[in-house]
Amino acid sequence: MKNYFAEFFGTFWLVFGGCGSALYAAGIPELGIGFAGVSLAFGLTVLTMAYAVGPISGGHFNPAVSFGLFTSGRFPAKELLPYIISQVLGGIAAAGVLYIIASGKSDFAIDSSSAGAFAANGYGSLSPMGYSMEAAFLAEFVLTAFFLIVILGATEKYANGKFAGIAIGLALTLIHLISIPITNTSVNPARSTSQAIFAGGAYIDQLWLFWLAPILGAVVGGLIYKYLLQKNSND
Amino acid sequence: MKNYFAEFFGTFWLVFGGCGSALYAAGIPELGIGFAGVSLAFGLTVLTMAYAVGPISGGHFNPAVSFGLFTSGRFPAKELLPYIISQVLGGIAAAGVLYIIASGKSDFAIDSSSAGAFAANGYGSLSPMGYSMEAAFLAEFVLTAFFLIVILGATEKYANGKFAGIAIGLALTLIHLISIPITNTSVNPARSTSQAIFAGGAYIDQLWLFWLAPILGAVVGGLIYKYLLQKNSND
Amino acid sequence: MKNYFAEFFGTFWLVFGGCGSALYAAGIPELGIGFAGVSLAFGLTVLTMAYAVGPISGGHFNPAVSFGLFTSGRFPAKELLPYIISQVLGGIAAAGVLYIIASGKSDFAIDSSSAGAFAANGYGSLSPMGYSMEAAFLAEFVLTAFFLIVILGATEKYANGKFAGIAIGLALTLIHLISIPITNTSVNPARSTSQAIFAGGAYIDQLWLFWLAPILGAVVGGLIYKYLLQKNSND
Amino acid sequence: MKNYFAEFFGTFWLVFGGCGSALYAAGIPELGIGFAGVSLAFGLTVLTMAYAVGPISGGHFNPAVSFGLFTSGRFPAKELLPYIISQVLGGIAAAGVLYIIASGKSDFAIDSSSAGAFAANGYGSLSPMGYSMEAAFLAEFVLTAFFLIVILGATEKYANGKFAGIAIGLALTLIHLISIPITNTSVNPARSTSQAIFAGGAYIDQLWLFWLAPILGAVVGGLIYKYLLQKNSND
Repeated sequence: MKNYFAEFFGTFWLVFGGCGSALYAAGIPELGIGFAGVSLAFGLTVLTMAYAVGPISGGHFNPAVSFGLFTSGRFPAKELLPYIISQVLGGIAAAGVLYIIASGKSDFAIDSSSAGAFAANGYGSLSPMGYSMEAAFLAEFVLTAFFLIVILGATEKYANGKFAGIAIGLALTLIHLISIPITNTSVNPARSTSQAIFAGGAYIDQLWLFWLAPILGAVVGGLIYKYLLQKNSND
Repeated sequence: MKNYFAEFFGTFWLVFGGCGSALYAAGIPELGIGFAGVSLAFGLTVLTMAYAVGPISGGHFNPAVSFGLFTSGRFPAKELLPYIISQVLGGIAAAGVLYIIASGKSDFAIDSSSAGAFAANGYGSLSPMGYSMEAAFLAEFVLTAFFLIVILGATEKYANGKFAGIAIGLALTLIHLISIPITNTSVNPARSTSQAIFAGGAYIDQLWLFWLAPILGAVVGGLIYKYLLQKNSND
Repeated sequence: MKNYFAEFFGTFWLVFGGCGSALYAAGIPELGIGFAGVSLAFGLTVLTMAYAVGPISGGHFNPAVSFGLFTSGRFPAKELLPYIISQVLGGIAAAGVLYIIASGKSDFAIDSSSAGAFAANGYGSLSPMGYSMEAAFLAEFVLTAFFLIVILGATEKYANGKFAGIAIGLALTLIHLISIPITNTSVNPARSTSQAIFAGGAYIDQLWLFWLAPILGAVVGGLIYKYLLQKNSND
Repeated sequence: MKNYFAEFFGTFWLVFGGCGSALYAAGIPELGIGFAGVSLAFGLTVLTMAYAVGPISGGHFNPAVSFGLFTSGRFPAKELLPYIISQVLGGIAAAGVLYIIASGKSDFAIDSSSAGAFAANGYGSLSPMGYSMEAAFLAEFVLTAFFLIVILGATEKYANGKFAGIAIGLALTLIHLISIPITNTSVNPARSTSQAIFAGGAYIDQLWLFWLAPILGAVVGGLIYKYLLQKNSND
């Protein structure tokens, strides 16, 4: 059970820290942390939890990562469902606490028709800077593919496994530095689901993309790594 | 005695660096470091002192951390009081030096009725963005709980203990990226006390929350880690 | 072949992440990541790929780096051409995907006569802040020379090889923090070529500088390291 | 001789990178890196050179650091002078190259009467935010003392020596996050000298403080570490 708790709390932290920094601190005039601060926050949630509970569950905190690791033969099929359930529940629990705290500010409101409502992901009219569905899909797909390449490479036994938490966490920071303006950055269906539930409206209708593109990207990243990059033991 | 000196100087550095960056550098128009820079500064005080004096005292620099480590069986009860006294004294000494330097700027003044005076923590009308007492309590509670989960996990023997300073320091950066707008971020009663003394007025009245919520959060974080996450030796 | 794929995907990631953050996220009013965010992104592309595929190809992702390593006797001459081809192709492929995503924003256009078009490098009228050709050459030369000194020193056997990915990646961040206003920062002919192709016009005419200055700098950096800094085995 | 070259090139990089980022990139409207970016740049110069040439010379790059290490018995008296000469020459050489590049921008000029001219350190009317001489002295003294505590602790044999480059580099970032508004941050007489020569005028008259306060702070930091913090072998 402890690995499921680790995924629950790890994904809670990812959503609470990443989306929380976006909700509370990004847009404050003059002093706000902006997209760069939110990017750093998302990366640090994974970096910190990788060292905290990585040895317990592997530190996925993301259904796409679990799929990608499965594709490359590093994660058993029978664990996919319980991991994903733990991740989604952790994300939703975090979103609930974020909502309660946000409600403690008198002018709090969610406008489901504006881009980036709550900290939800979107495309087209719900993309922060108005990127099309095709651009959003391509960005999420490519970024998740490379996220898996970094994860698989950095955790190789012959590589520097103990540095993996730094490399993987900061890869998520990098991904956000590129793509918050495009989709508000998902690469993580659990994170997207947690926010869409509270943002509601059209965000629910767009949620399919933030499951499909990251998982597809993760599978392709896993295959690229396995067949084009991974050293054979007899290399 | 050297462990008490380590806690004194470590907490001095935490308050001097974290609160000092907020006081001197955060709000300068155009060039100021903003909330993101202050977040980085707080985290780096802990990261740097963890490597400097962590091996001497364990590197708590925070009464809530000492309580959380005690809860999870990693810190002896009889050391709680001397550690907390060392931390509070270190924080107050740093605040005194911050005050002297700040006084060297001709237009320096502390307005005890404005949010974030000196670098004090507050809720309600003293919250930087006007968050209620309940929201402030919940944020401080949750953030300190997760801070302890990161600390306990990252310092496990089977984990990468030598990376703990990076993970724990950057966890404090992450915590600030989320919550400066809510309470000016405490998660550390020694830091809060050091600033409230100089900010005075209503800040003293609100100080109870920044002892109670972080310590309660740290205890709950310690229990979550111990019973739901920690690997048993026979796992 | 796997080392060539590693250089291809690594340089893809460098251009996609570094130039992508510049294209999509740098200039958004209030929330944009600015030059500091772009600097961080470039560095993190190298940091993450160094841990992901560094053990496969050495992690150059840059023709100037390959030349510099060759100069100091750490890279065989016969690998220079295939490495550089892999790097340039990876960069161009990334630029192509960046272009497709950028086209998904209705107001996207490339103005080949303005400084920093696409994310191209330039001098004189194409320098972001109007620096002359001589200043641009000197900056690119000095920065690439020091980049090689960091690379060669950090990967020495007697040094901390496993920390090299952090030191080298963050060296690239530092280089960008200094020089984005001067040339939009190259120190990497593959990165420059990939953007000049899409920026077109005068950017193609200026491309020679971003091959010549970085490679010359890398060679001089390699020689400085070899003759003035490197410890002899009998030191 | 190689240790002197290492100090020369290391201090060159510190001044070129730290002061260069301030000169070229800090103040650009909207996109500039601000004080936070300059803070990161200074820290990364030391982080990167610590891994590059730290094993060759110890990686001081700063006369105050050499004095502090001497005080605590870790550096021989006879090396003080050649190290300091190497550091000052490296800093001045870097300032010269910075000047040449800066001259390549048509509107470049140094106004010796304005605060922060070139990237010089100052107090009173030459302090970026108008801090008094006493405040400037106290800030430089305290910050250099703690810098030495971090350096001495992080490089202890029983500590994590291989992490020292990260802790020490980021300590310099932290120091800048606090004190750029006060003195433009020195804690390093070689860095101050290199800029005062080009800034001229009153900056030369104020240079004494940026030798005296950092060296005094470093000596006191060294003594605090040695007598109050350092573990005895029989502890």
